[in-house]
Amino acid sequence: MQKLKIGIIGVGRIGKIHAYNALHSNKFELRAISDVSNDQLDHSSLRESVPIITNQPEKILTDSEIDAIFICSSTDTHVDYIKKAASEGKHVFCEKPISLHIHDTYEVLDIVKKANIKFQVGFNRRYDKHFKKVYESVRKGVVGNPHIIKITSRDPKPPSEQYIKQSGGMFMDMTIHDFDLIRYLSGREVEEVSVKTANLISPIFHKNKDVDTAVITLIFDDGSLGVIDNSRQAVYGYDQRIEVFGEKGLIKVENEKETNLEVSTKDSVVVAQPSYFFLDRYYDAYQSEIDAFADSILLNKSTLTQLDDGLKAEILALTAKKSAQEERSVKVNEVCADYGLPYF
Amino acid sequence: MQKLKIGIIGVGRIGKIHAYNALHSNKFELRAISDVSNDQLDHSSLRESVPIITNQPEKILTDSEIDAIFICSSTDTHVDYIKKAASEGKHVFCEKPISLHIHDTYEVLDIVKKANIKFQVGFNRRYDKHFKKVYESVRKGVVGNPHIIKITSRDPKPPSEQYIKQSGGMFMDMTIHDFDLIRYLSGREVEEVSVKTANLISPIFHKNKDVDTAVITLIFDDGSLGVIDNSRQAVYGYDQRIEVFGEKGLIKVENEKETNLEVSTKDSVVVAQPSYFFLDRYYDAYQSEIDAFADSILLNKSTLTQLDDGLKAEILALTAKKSAQEERSVKVNEVCADYGLPYF
Amino acid sequence: MQKLKIGIIGVGRIGKIHAYNALHSNKFELRAISDVSNDQLDHSSLRESVPIITNQPEKILTDSEIDAIFICSSTDTHVDYIKKAASEGKHVFCEKPISLHIHDTYEVLDIVKKANIKFQVGFNRRYDKHFKKVYESVRKGVVGNPHIIKITSRDPKPPSEQYIKQSGGMFMDMTIHDFDLIRYLSGREVEEVSVKTANLISPIFHKNKDVDTAVITLIFDDGSLGVIDNSRQAVYGYDQRIEVFGEKGLIKVENEKETNLEVSTKDSVVVAQPSYFFLDRYYDAYQSEIDAFADSILLNKSTLTQLDDGLKAEILALTAKKSAQEERSVKVNEVCADYGLPYF
Amino acid sequence: MQKLKIGIIGVGRIGKIHAYNALHSNKFELRAISDVSNDQLDHSSLRESVPIITNQPEKILTDSEIDAIFICSSTDTHVDYIKKAASEGKHVFCEKPISLHIHDTYEVLDIVKKANIKFQVGFNRRYDKHFKKVYESVRKGVVGNPHIIKITSRDPKPPSEQYIKQSGGMFMDMTIHDFDLIRYLSGREVEEVSVKTANLISPIFHKNKDVDTAVITLIFDDGSLGVIDNSRQAVYGYDQRIEVFGEKGLIKVENEKETNLEVSTKDSVVVAQPSYFFLDRYYDAYQSEIDAFADSILLNKSTLTQLDDGLKAEILALTAKKSAQEERSVKVNEVCADYGLPYF
Repeated sequence: MQKLKIGIIGVGRIGKIHAYNALHSNKFELRAISDVSNDQLDHSSLRESVPIITNQPEKILTDSEIDAIFICSSTDTHVDYIKKAASEGKHVFCEKPISLHIHDTYEVLDIVKKANIKFQVGFNRRYDKHFKKVYESVRKGVVGNPHIIKITSRDPKPPSEQYIKQSGGMFMDMTIHDFDLIRYLSGREVEEVSVKTANLISPIFHKNKDVDTAVITLIFDDGSLGVIDNSRQAVYGYDQRIEVFGEKGLIKVENEKETNLEVSTKDSVVVAQPSYFFLDRYYDAYQSEIDAFADSILLNKSTLTQLDDGLKAEILALTAKKSAQEERSVKVNEVCADYGLPYF
Repeated sequence: MQKLKIGIIGVGRIGKIHAYNALHSNKFELRAISDVSNDQLDHSSLRESVPIITNQPEKILTDSEIDAIFICSSTDTHVDYIKKAASEGKHVFCEKPISLHIHDTYEVLDIVKKANIKFQVGFNRRYDKHFKKVYESVRKGVVGNPHIIKITSRDPKPPSEQYIKQSGGMFMDMTIHDFDLIRYLSGREVEEVSVKTANLISPIFHKNKDVDTAVITLIFDDGSLGVIDNSRQAVYGYDQRIEVFGEKGLIKVENEKETNLEVSTKDSVVVAQPSYFFLDRYYDAYQSEIDAFADSILLNKSTLTQLDDGLKAEILALTAKKSAQEERSVKVNEVCADYGLPYF
Repeated sequence: MQKLKIGIIGVGRIGKIHAYNALHSNKFELRAISDVSNDQLDHSSLRESVPIITNQPEKILTDSEIDAIFICSSTDTHVDYIKKAASEGKHVFCEKPISLHIHDTYEVLDIVKKANIKFQVGFNRRYDKHFKKVYESVRKGVVGNPHIIKITSRDPKPPSEQYIKQSGGMFMDMTIHDFDLIRYLSGREVEEVSVKTANLISPIFHKNKDVDTAVITLIFDDGSLGVIDNSRQAVYGYDQRIEVFGEKGLIKVENEKETNLEVSTKDSVVVAQPSYFFLDRYYDAYQSEIDAFADSILLNKSTLTQLDDGLKAEILALTAKKSAQEERSVKVNEVCADYGLPYF
Repeated sequence: MQKLKIGIIGVGRIGKIHAYNALHSNKFELRAISDVSNDQLDHSSLRESVPIITNQPEKILTDSEIDAIFICSSTDTHVDYIKKAASEGKHVFCEKPISLHIHDTYEVLDIVKKANIKFQVGFNRRYDKHFKKVYESVRKGVVGNPHIIKITSRDPKPPSEQYIKQSGGMFMDMTIHDFDLIRYLSGREVEEVSVKTANLISPIFHKNKDVDTAVITLIFDDGSLGVIDNSRQAVYGYDQRIEVFGEKGLIKVENEKETNLEVSTKDSVVVAQPSYFFLDRYYDAYQSEIDAFADSILLNKSTLTQLDDGLKAEILALTAKKSAQEERSVKVNEVCADYGLPYF
């Protein structure tokens, strides 16, 4: 069987996941990795398994043996690497968000299209088996037209202040996943976003002009509603639940629990906690997403999470930000107009 | 043991529940019932158990043997009966809403206070054992300060058009329960209400200038958030769930199911559906609420759901209505100012 | 509506339940109660609600105003009261077991039949809504022919030594309910009983030649299997679960929990405990069983738990006892032969 | 990092699992596989990934490059291969049962000990994360001394008649896993086995002197009890549940479900089915068990499922068989005496 030869740029937390998954998959040959500093790799077993280790991403981008690039470096570097990869005719898997400047994201959309390469954005949740099943059920009409889609999405603990500074804010960093997922599940585009926020967890968010708690209400293009609630700190673990309520019923997905144990004693009945964080919760989804990426190239299929999806989720994040700042509901096409983007 | 002698005005659906519960409780002596037409009672076993059956409510309101009045007639009659009962020194249990005109509700607040009678509004959900337990857990600090309180509240099927016409609209008729419950659970007052609505179920709502679907976001006076979602038609049954998410964790209450059966066959694993509607779901709560009312009088305790709670829930319903009409977030004190009410 | 006039003999724990339920039901007129000592009633509200209170059961048994007798006194008195009631033409509701001497039970079977009275034995579990639903599902063929029926039945705490002495042993006192329930659910008769016992909880059981822990395997008359496990002490609460596994699937009933709360914190996810004991767990079933008794008389229907069912459950208890004592599997007809009873 | 060089003899269903898992693990180098016919491999991707493919197991057993042998061939070949591997100083991973003749199993116990090799028997369930957690909780005393341990263990569909013929019977083929698991969880040895069987599923079992349904009761050496129920056909999927009930409470493990979806419609509330069969249910456990095997050798630790555990589970299977045949409870030491084995 043919293998996809890949290089990975950036092996922080998420880059490492892809690297290990690629090493353990027989669809990939992981030829090279690069990182700005090599510190991340010092004690890593990647050292022995990957032929080329470098701190010069260009070496990977221009390596003629390499078919596809995984871009997992800091967000501000994404666009340059995408452009370079496209010019070399290499396929691209890029972590979200594509950029922090919507014009840049819009610009690469055109470049990627012209280069005729495959592009996949790292919206891992679409590849989760539970959510995929929800998607299929909705498409099959199990609950008819959706009326209200609800996503509960809460991290177990806040990121570092350094991370917050570079994150683009909670909507661009965290809610962006929920925006993509709700578009995917609804099969609809969002027309209006209304946000209520709070700073209840840590002063570092306020200090960095960010929020830590939010309820985001959406109006879809068929008039149906969506609601996402986010928190940067759910002390009991990673809270990732969805509900699609429609004319014919309700589809509900509860959290995955670490085990199926139920322990009953004199004082209490205790069940297991949710998976602690994304590495555990989406362990299988991370494997599936790169597997799908390999298939899209090897079998010449379209990817499930395209650049266009990345762009639209970013526009929703901007709309949410504007709604929070101006304390009012904001139409998505207002934001498109602000940035001179075509209405999507 | 002393019994509370009561009369019930209005024996429609809800009046009948109270009548039967009173008959089966040893805290009550049900002395009289009245109804505009006697049709409701024709085939009812109440005929044989209740000494006085009349179509003249005044007879009940002036009966010197009666200690307390249950007002379960149509909303537009409430205020007159309350005033009369108060003038006779009789305690009052009144169904929600107290009135459809906030001034009237405000007016009786004063009258009731001066008459020094007990007054209980029929917010039955506070008496549900699950929700009571949530309340206690929140008060004990089990999850610390609440950050986001979520209520899912959906009826199994829409009411009749006739009912819709008189209902005061979905917020005043249905969400009013959720407004009261969220005030109760949070221990906070709401400062701002933001509503997104939809008409997705039946044209009769739109025809009557009402909505059938809504997501309502609340900001409490400590900056924390609440979100209620309503639908007039959850085909799978009465959907009544709550979540209190706070700094130290999450309290979640799922629906009560009709039975605990799980049936696994070749094709599916089926569990029981939620209780179909309020008569089943809140069966125990209806008993508890009148029991508490009897205790408040016999043991001279304050009631849990006072006229003040009725007023505040009505103001929130009006705020929601304004938010829906003006398509913007509305501060509660704006509405108070509109009506010349003191800020609550 | 006609009411059934009843007298209750014995108002200990279970007699009191029936008394209160009768008082709160409009199908009954509770005319008299008797108890050997009146201590039980001293602080009871029954004093004010029941016209006749006596320590002479004969007064009740011969009261011409009374239609039916509830026999809730100690087991050794049951047979005499049944005979007397039958001779007076009064219907009988009798708590389990009917007697501790199988010949006596067998004798009254004949007497009751000849007297042409209604007789109901207090196997309350058949009236539980969950178990009733299992029964209906099995009868409808939802899981086809049962292959293995499992009952988990554990008390939260051991009874007093005094109780143990008079109980007839764990099989006659506690498992008797499970024997009845498994006959009911299977729709089959048991042919063989095999018991493994243990004394793991308290020396008082061994001291009184009783056991506190058992696994009881049954072979039904179609070759299918049953298994019951009992313990006198499940510290987490009353454990009452059943499973019917058959050719087409599995029906499972979990414990009822006190509430539907789930509380997630940093350290654990806690759900509610099972109902603590039979008064809570079977609260509704106790109401239903006397309701059904009233109906059987007022509407001349047969009772669901007849004297014959009482007899058969007692024979199974004796078979279990013999299996435990002789440490071998015992056929039910061996025990019938031992006692000169017709094979059932 | 050092890798363990292995060869796999037999690549039927279970051999293939180990082969793929070894290929995807960085603890193994899969150097060779053998199979009596090469048919199994014809369309397998193993062809391209494994250097040596042969139909002569001896080549693998004598290959000096190979450190350890996986024996996954038919049971009647196990003993010869173990002996050969031991004589070559190679470590052994052997599927269950080790043999169908207890003397043979007993014989290799000695040989393996003298050869000073690592030996692991394929009791995969001990490596399941849920069951491991139960084990740890029991050891920590969470429920105190176990009183009753229950295992529900049912296959989704019967094996082929050819498989049944060679299986050694249900107890040796299927219950053997439960016997091992119950020894593991209890930390106790079994003293007595009592079996009730039935043939309810397919005539092919009876035709081959086998059974398809059983309830097996165990008495442990501290007097506590165990009960296993088996069926060859649970049409709803692989039913693998355990309960440890003890003096301080209950630990319960429900089935893993395929997804966390709950779909509520007008007619039903449907949740996902259990994982269909062992490949899905124990997918992770199969990875963990070979991982642990590699660690035992590379880090010189003892294996968790030793030859001794294989022997004891086989003795329990024989005891169960004798109990079924002689229709009585059988002491384990009776069987040991029958075969001239030391009491274990």
